[in-house]
Amino acid sequence: METIKGVCGNIVPLKNEYFIKAQSRLDILTKPQGSLGQLEQFAARLVTIYEDEMPSIPKKAVFVFAGDHGVAEEGVSAFPAEVTPQMVLNFLRGGAGINVLARHAGADVLVIDAGVNYDFKDCPGLIQKKVVYGTKNITKGPAMSRDEAIKCVNVGIALAREYAQKGIKMFATGEMGIANTTPSSAIAAVVTGRPVKEVTGKGTGIGDADLSKKIAVIERAIAVNAPDAADPIDVLAKIGGAEIGAIAGLCLGAAQLRLPVVIDGFISTAGAVIAYGLNAMVKEYMFSAHRSYEIGHRAILEHMGLTPMLELDMRLGEGTGAAIAMTILDASLKIYREMATFQDAGVSDKS
Amino acid sequence: METIKGVCGNIVPLKNEYFIKAQSRLDILTKPQGSLGQLEQFAARLVTIYEDEMPSIPKKAVFVFAGDHGVAEEGVSAFPAEVTPQMVLNFLRGGAGINVLARHAGADVLVIDAGVNYDFKDCPGLIQKKVVYGTKNITKGPAMSRDEAIKCVNVGIALAREYAQKGIKMFATGEMGIANTTPSSAIAAVVTGRPVKEVTGKGTGIGDADLSKKIAVIERAIAVNAPDAADPIDVLAKIGGAEIGAIAGLCLGAAQLRLPVVIDGFISTAGAVIAYGLNAMVKEYMFSAHRSYEIGHRAILEHMGLTPMLELDMRLGEGTGAAIAMTILDASLKIYREMATFQDAGVSDKS
Repeated sequence: METIKGVCGNIVPLKNEYFIKAQSRLDILTKPQGSLGQLEQFAARLVTIYEDEMPSIPKKAVFVFAGDHGVAEEGVSAFPAEVTPQMVLNFLRGGAGINVLARHAGADVLVIDAGVNYDFKDCPGLIQKKVVYGTKNITKGPAMSRDEAIKCVNVGIALAREYAQKGIKMFATGEMGIANTTPSSAIAAVVTGRPVKEVTGKGTGIGDADLSKKIAVIERAIAVNAPDAADPIDVLAKIGGAEIGAIAGLCLGAAQLRLPVVIDGFISTAGAVIAYGLNAMVKEYMFSAHRSYEIGHRAILEHMGLTPMLELDMRLGEGTGAAIAMTILDASLKIYREMATFQDAGVSDKS
Repeated sequence: METIKGVCGNIVPLKNEYFIKAQSRLDILTKPQGSLGQLEQFAARLVTIYEDEMPSIPKKAVFVFAGDHGVAEEGVSAFPAEVTPQMVLNFLRGGAGINVLARHAGADVLVIDAGVNYDFKDCPGLIQKKVVYGTKNITKGPAMSRDEAIKCVNVGIALAREYAQKGIKMFATGEMGIANTTPSSAIAAVVTGRPVKEVTGKGTGIGDADLSKKIAVIERAIAVNAPDAADPIDVLAKIGGAEIGAIAGLCLGAAQLRLPVVIDGFISTAGAVIAYGLNAMVKEYMFSAHRSYEIGHRAILEHMGLTPMLELDMRLGEGTGAAIAMTILDASLKIYREMATFQDAGVSDKS
């Protein structure tokens, strides 16, 4: 087992020489310089992450980590907790939003039980990595122990390595867990230092009265647990979730392996910011897929200095925004790889 | 030959009953209602445009209209005019940005000479519809005659019909024409009533001094020609361009045929607003692909009340933004078609 500290120590900054090489190629393609905007920047960053001047279109996978949340018993979600295992089965049958959009993107979907409060038996395709049977109710004490939190992170780190060895060259994060915008907002409040009400939204669709209750629940959870903002594992253990920890681990693992990781929406970004707290360099390997409708998401993105690729008012999670973002990243690499140069095409350059 | 007036008269408003049917299906899919945000809205609008409760993934084509601009001789572009035919040849060989991104989107690329100042001989694949050998210099008089402007619009109308008959169910607009941000800014100023400097940008990349000159050129063109903002064909003839007119025609033709048309960036939107001036209902059939870096683009979009799908700082044109937008529209239809319902998946709905 790799230690988290060991993984963090292996993450290196991106090498500017690859940015320069990528930009040199982009500048001789048959278009005004910079006219493909962010597509050019995405291509240049991928070249730099891969340290490969002509990267292939990567094999892709979306990792959908599932976990339950004891705090669901406080009535913070519009959906009952039983929906977590039901949706896991939906993922395995291919009927969920992420299945459709991952097929669209040409990406595999990997479904991982990180902490669902349900015994899955005989579930072909499910990756069994259960650390807890759901977290505990964070209004009454910590979500999980520090050891359990570390185990969750290690689930993500180990999967990154395993699937990199299987040839996956681009990861995306996804998640499923009824009530998981509650720990995500709690994390957002603690890491950004903002008031809970500024980082808490309606999740899957609660009403105004329930939103007030949700805010009070999160304030109580933070007061009861007093997480140490300077210790990301403490934050994860006290007010986080199993799937959030696994996402943090996937981010660390991807960065260690010098592979890009596409971060989906709010819950995924809550996982990403735990990784960022452990080593801020992980950010260089991350692409923020989209700006979710959840206000806490913006707060964490600003804290990390990440700019999302898309803004489509999505708030489903599962990795759905990340799947679409991967199609844009593929497009950026195709531009880089396939466009003719001015010289090849016999086109006059800028006069 | 259909008359423009006849085509405009055949455009009907969208039927609300299809919106309602589409929304009913979206609401029983295994996700919180509305949680796929704009993807759901795109799917519902496509269902309504097609008047088909379960539309197939459409065959797609990007129409790249090329035209030259006499005003190029005023030094308003960073590139020499010879680049227009050179890029047409690059399109035909498959090496341009639009070729790469249309392949990515699974869309055909159709390259049309609407008004290039060059005799293309022996160019397999080029659709020859030349109306003018480039427009005239708009600082000295009209770009073209009223008859020529009408012919340009008819090029687009006829191609829409021809390719609909060949099975294309989703159109996208694209263009190539050195200096064509200049007529586009002129159109933006006239139709929105804004000062030229508020709708004029650096195009493919001129400097600050040249931008001042470009603004003066456009102001002169408007003063010399005095286009009638209430008469879109007059605007097109006096300060427009051949490719801009053909794009207007494609928009009208698509709407008449009840097919969606994805509008690329600034120049395409200048064409779209000519169609909008002829019949504002065309807007219901349009998807604005992206917000271009060009400031005039925003002005026209606001004038039409269109919200762009993407914002990737692109300013290449050719249809490149539209090609990416088509991949998002496909994704929206796949969600609509392929996701499991709560009942099928045995997932509990909102409690």
